[in-house]
Amino acid sequence: MHRYALRIEYDGTPFRGWQRQVALASVQGAVEAALRRLDPQAPSIAAAGRTDTGVHATAQVAHCDLARAWDAFRLRAALNAHLRPHPVAVLAAAPVPEDFHARFSAIERAYVFRILNRRAPPALDAQRVWHVPHPLDATAMQAGAAYLVGQHDFTSFRASQCQALSPVKTLDAITVTVVPAAAGQEIRIALRARSFLHNQVRSIVGTLERVGAGAWAPHRVRDTLEARDRAACGPVAPPQGLCLTGVRYPVDPFA
Amino acid sequence: MHRYALRIEYDGTPFRGWQRQVALASVQGAVEAALRRLDPQAPSIAAAGRTDTGVHATAQVAHCDLARAWDAFRLRAALNAHLRPHPVAVLAAAPVPEDFHARFSAIERAYVFRILNRRAPPALDAQRVWHVPHPLDATAMQAGAAYLVGQHDFTSFRASQCQALSPVKTLDAITVTVVPAAAGQEIRIALRARSFLHNQVRSIVGTLERVGAGAWAPHRVRDTLEARDRAACGPVAPPQGLCLTGVRYPVDPFA
Repeated sequence: MHRYALRIEYDGTPFRGWQRQVALASVQGAVEAALRRLDPQAPSIAAAGRTDTGVHATAQVAHCDLARAWDAFRLRAALNAHLRPHPVAVLAAAPVPEDFHARFSAIERAYVFRILNRRAPPALDAQRVWHVPHPLDATAMQAGAAYLVGQHDFTSFRASQCQALSPVKTLDAITVTVVPAAAGQEIRIALRARSFLHNQVRSIVGTLERVGAGAWAPHRVRDTLEARDRAACGPVAPPQGLCLTGVRYPVDPFA
Repeated sequence: MHRYALRIEYDGTPFRGWQRQVALASVQGAVEAALRRLDPQAPSIAAAGRTDTGVHATAQVAHCDLARAWDAFRLRAALNAHLRPHPVAVLAAAPVPEDFHARFSAIERAYVFRILNRRAPPALDAQRVWHVPHPLDATAMQAGAAYLVGQHDFTSFRASQCQALSPVKTLDAITVTVVPAAAGQEIRIALRARSFLHNQVRSIVGTLERVGAGAWAPHRVRDTLEARDRAACGPVAPPQGLCLTGVRYPVDPFA
């Protein structure tokens, strides 16, 4: 048995998320179908982040097991050939030890959420951004975000169907930056943590949007956190603005 | 009669270009259909750049004539409401004098062409970039591009169906920049001129790709220019990497 780590980019739009589901298109299903063109007995694969419907990735990491050894370069090329025409690309493949696990070995996930902040709707990035037509104050959003850094009980920012054993997570960093956009601005919220609860990023972004809009004072983010109550949170931001941009391991398998 | 300038963003993927054609989807047709929801007698519109099938715009400019006066803010909102679900957005509308003509008054067009330069195919930007899997030398491309700046007979870089009266054009600027991309690099070629011949940008990019690949020495771009022969040009680059990013007028109608 030969184990490989795969770094994967995908457009989440046509998929019902990463995870394989009967009769629904999933990224996992697309990658597994390509793998089974190479090895009909290839077992199912595991990924670092189980992204939801419509969520994108530039650097998802998964691992797979193959009966025979592959040159990493040829494995990537063969998988990309079989992935066509799905909007899924294997950016890198690398042999890893048998105890490497894309999900359980990961020590950090990084996400970026993009908000297109202008009156006109998006034409070119419709499936890549959350369109917020009213003005947002990025400085207030950053002030609100600062309350979330560190170890907290994130129950308020957790989906009801979340299966994590504990709601306590450590958010290592959250930054709000403004990028110029045609006829407005784009607000990018970047987050890093060892792991996230289900819907945690989108719940945080939805809450920060309320702060940016001036509807909530920044310190209400702290109140929301302390409430440990899903009802105290702002609305959950839509999925298409979210992108998994990186996964870290104790030893970088692609280095 | 009240004339308005419109700044328009669009995803060119589902359209057979800007120009209206019988029984084919066009950006012009989509905008005119929206205008006629406001004014059934609205005449057809003119644009600064007649982009080809699959070419995008972040700042196309067109002008339209309406029977009654509109508040510019409300005109934009009404057009965007009627443009749904097309991937076309009016970013700005502004009243202009009756002698303003989006095409004939323009004094500069700016285009950007994006090349995704990495082995793996694009998943997120498949309809936004030209995928070139072999290594490209951006420094050599810039050296080749330098021969094109200034006034020249661009016959070698002109489509056979081009209807311009003269092949002589003045290229004001062309710059090649490298941007980091997941698992590779993105090469952006930005061009500015008063006007361009049909397929001129894509012919230039296709030629520079040959230079970047090392197949052509940079000075062969000068030889191509001097040949005044379509056959001397490199292959025409595909449309999806191209985007119209700006149009200038003696007086900015949106200022």
